[in-house]
Amino acid sequence: MEGLTKIDDLGKPRVVIVGGGFGGLELAKALAHAPVQVVLIDKQNYHTFQPLLYQVASAGLDEGDIVSPFRKILNEQENFYFRLAEVQSVDPVAQIVETSIGCVRYDYLVLATGATTNYFGDEVMAKNAIAIKSVEDALELRNTVLCNFEQALQLGDMEQLNSLLDFVIVGGGPTGVEIAGALSELRTHVFPKDYREIDFKEMDIHLVQSGPVLLKGMSANASKRALESLEKFGVQVWLDARVKSYDGYTATLNNGQQLVARTLIWAAGVTGAPVQGLDASCLLPGNRYAVDHYNRVRGYENVFAIGDIALMKTDDYPDGHPMVAQPALQQGRRLGKNLHRVLTHRLMEPFHYDDKGAMATIGRNHAVADIKLFGKEYHLDGFIAWLAWSVVHVVSLIGFRNRLMVLLQWTWSYFSYDKGLRYIIGKTKAPLVEADMEEGKAII
Amino acid sequence: MEGLTKIDDLGKPRVVIVGGGFGGLELAKALAHAPVQVVLIDKQNYHTFQPLLYQVASAGLDEGDIVSPFRKILNEQENFYFRLAEVQSVDPVAQIVETSIGCVRYDYLVLATGATTNYFGDEVMAKNAIAIKSVEDALELRNTVLCNFEQALQLGDMEQLNSLLDFVIVGGGPTGVEIAGALSELRTHVFPKDYREIDFKEMDIHLVQSGPVLLKGMSANASKRALESLEKFGVQVWLDARVKSYDGYTATLNNGQQLVARTLIWAAGVTGAPVQGLDASCLLPGNRYAVDHYNRVRGYENVFAIGDIALMKTDDYPDGHPMVAQPALQQGRRLGKNLHRVLTHRLMEPFHYDDKGAMATIGRNHAVADIKLFGKEYHLDGFIAWLAWSVVHVVSLIGFRNRLMVLLQWTWSYFSYDKGLRYIIGKTKAPLVEADMEEGKAII
Repeated sequence: MEGLTKIDDLGKPRVVIVGGGFGGLELAKALAHAPVQVVLIDKQNYHTFQPLLYQVASAGLDEGDIVSPFRKILNEQENFYFRLAEVQSVDPVAQIVETSIGCVRYDYLVLATGATTNYFGDEVMAKNAIAIKSVEDALELRNTVLCNFEQALQLGDMEQLNSLLDFVIVGGGPTGVEIAGALSELRTHVFPKDYREIDFKEMDIHLVQSGPVLLKGMSANASKRALESLEKFGVQVWLDARVKSYDGYTATLNNGQQLVARTLIWAAGVTGAPVQGLDASCLLPGNRYAVDHYNRVRGYENVFAIGDIALMKTDDYPDGHPMVAQPALQQGRRLGKNLHRVLTHRLMEPFHYDDKGAMATIGRNHAVADIKLFGKEYHLDGFIAWLAWSVVHVVSLIGFRNRLMVLLQWTWSYFSYDKGLRYIIGKTKAPLVEADMEEGKAII
Repeated sequence: MEGLTKIDDLGKPRVVIVGGGFGGLELAKALAHAPVQVVLIDKQNYHTFQPLLYQVASAGLDEGDIVSPFRKILNEQENFYFRLAEVQSVDPVAQIVETSIGCVRYDYLVLATGATTNYFGDEVMAKNAIAIKSVEDALELRNTVLCNFEQALQLGDMEQLNSLLDFVIVGGGPTGVEIAGALSELRTHVFPKDYREIDFKEMDIHLVQSGPVLLKGMSANASKRALESLEKFGVQVWLDARVKSYDGYTATLNNGQQLVARTLIWAAGVTGAPVQGLDASCLLPGNRYAVDHYNRVRGYENVFAIGDIALMKTDDYPDGHPMVAQPALQQGRRLGKNLHRVLTHRLMEPFHYDDKGAMATIGRNHAVADIKLFGKEYHLDGFIAWLAWSVVHVVSLIGFRNRLMVLLQWTWSYFSYDKGLRYIIGKTKAPLVEADMEEGKAII
């Protein structure tokens, strides 16, 4: 392994980072000037800006606008090395990570593997639902929605037709709320022009939330406004309801209600994605590693965890920090400084989370935001919150190119009421519906 | 089939167009105000701007920048109907097209199925080579190139290493020349920054051309300049050479030369993509339909063919028109007018090809163009030709959004020397190379 041996000769300690999400990438950057070799291992060759995946799914953005190849982001950083590989297990005694391309020795190991969709063990659900955790997920959802409508044109039977036009979204968190809003925008402004033969009054969007409010964790005002906006957009919101089962056609709620839909979008929770090989005792419920205030995994000297995969209990956050971008970014930055300190014989400093608040967009001119500034909390909604959300997300994107492209797409979509990327390329979960033959004849 | 029956009630004759390439799409537009129902059938839901596929393959453009969904392009045209389907066969007696979603009756049938990659019956080649005819092809090629380099990092053995770094391009037409130039640009400006551990002097780009000149069909000046530019860019051009066989690893030329490369790009010719059911007598060598000067298929009154699938012999073009965008566009426009004339009881007018010339780009500031204006022919090369090429291609794109996005990407790439879309999403033909274990150990 040319590169890695080459660097070994310099005899610098090696920091191996597993996973290039918000936390892992920020850490790699923070180590730019530390006397270490940084090796990032990820099974993708790009960083994904997850908060905008739902816009890729709803044909508003190209995947290329929200992903950035690691090598492109960091190819100026001399101590950075990337390896495209799947991590199979860790040997903390030999200090080796076993991967699909061989073994990687480490001096310091940082697990930033994030979280994965949690179906709570429901195999059938896992098979039939679509998640929005990866670019592949988002593109599959986009393709599926479009294929559904193309196929609906072949059908006369109303129940069959509705099964293709209706959507069930499980989970009333930001992702669920945002995809529900995006689908309702498409229903109002885009699809009726594309599919003149379909009556879009027949297209139902159901949002199923297990708790009594949407956007749990945000302010009561945010939850209330989000609900009002979604109902204004014609989304059917089911509060205090759970989807008990889904066979790919009928979703049954715990209140007995049955919803017929070929597409169910699962945004109802995530679970940590741990690696093999560490002592079971350090893995807490939710598959997150117990870490101390320095993000060190319980029981290990040189193994750390940051972001969604880490669970740090503090007085302010007895159940750990929210599983969103900010804690991951801040922990990555903090740990970068701390490793630098250790290697220059200084003491590490404990992590303190700076909560900047939370935001969610519902659709055109509608968003909610709880913003924390100088200890004060401000509740915004409507256009001003939507504008704030847009600015924050454009600025947070990686690379000038992506910022420019997203800004342009959004400006374009805003004034044209259009979402242009309605092409079907690649995987789809749409069922192959047989055209009704008696109806099919009518095609002649 | 709601939509189609609805229209039937108006009792307008139905024009069924098979294939939404340059010809089919132009025809559909040209029929906007004709007293007909226009039904376009395509197995994709989008039009592909094929001349820029090679830029998608070389990470310069997003697929979203060069494709446009048919429904988006034509959703204002009231007599337009689209169906996503594969055409299985035609029954010219019953006047029915059999498709994967049922049967479609036609009054006028227009075949615009274009051309497909021609491996001249070499199954092994078809299996191991990558073409650049579709968006899927282009993305697969992009993914394969990037995967090759990621895997090359694992290898010590020089032959194995070179097999991943080297590329063989078969065919010295515009596509072959353009992809060769694009790869050499990546080799010079992009990859060395991304893969500091790889010595890109080891990356060879071979262009194999069966004839004595590149860009056959363009002026001698264009051929000469293209060759000069490519050689300046360090592309190894093999003239009067054929690839006899390729097993996925070694390409053997008819002159005995062997080229070791895991990636072979096939740009060596196309063949028509006819449909089942028409009389064999109307299919000429090259699988193109013999058509008269009105693009009517020989032996049929109401079946037409336009673009690459049509072979119209004229005094100026005894072997038919070149299989490029312009003849297809012009035939689509002409046929649209002619069908309108027939339906309003006027005589059709014969097709006359207005040859505007030809262009090919080799890379940054290097292109060649033979431009025909007012009967005169002008030969351009270098920067001015490159500028002309860029302008013509941006303007030819469909939709303001795509034009703007491509213009921006190009401006950005030009000044940054960067090609940003270097992410691996979806299919790849890259072999799964096992890391050399003795070398692999070195990774530790």
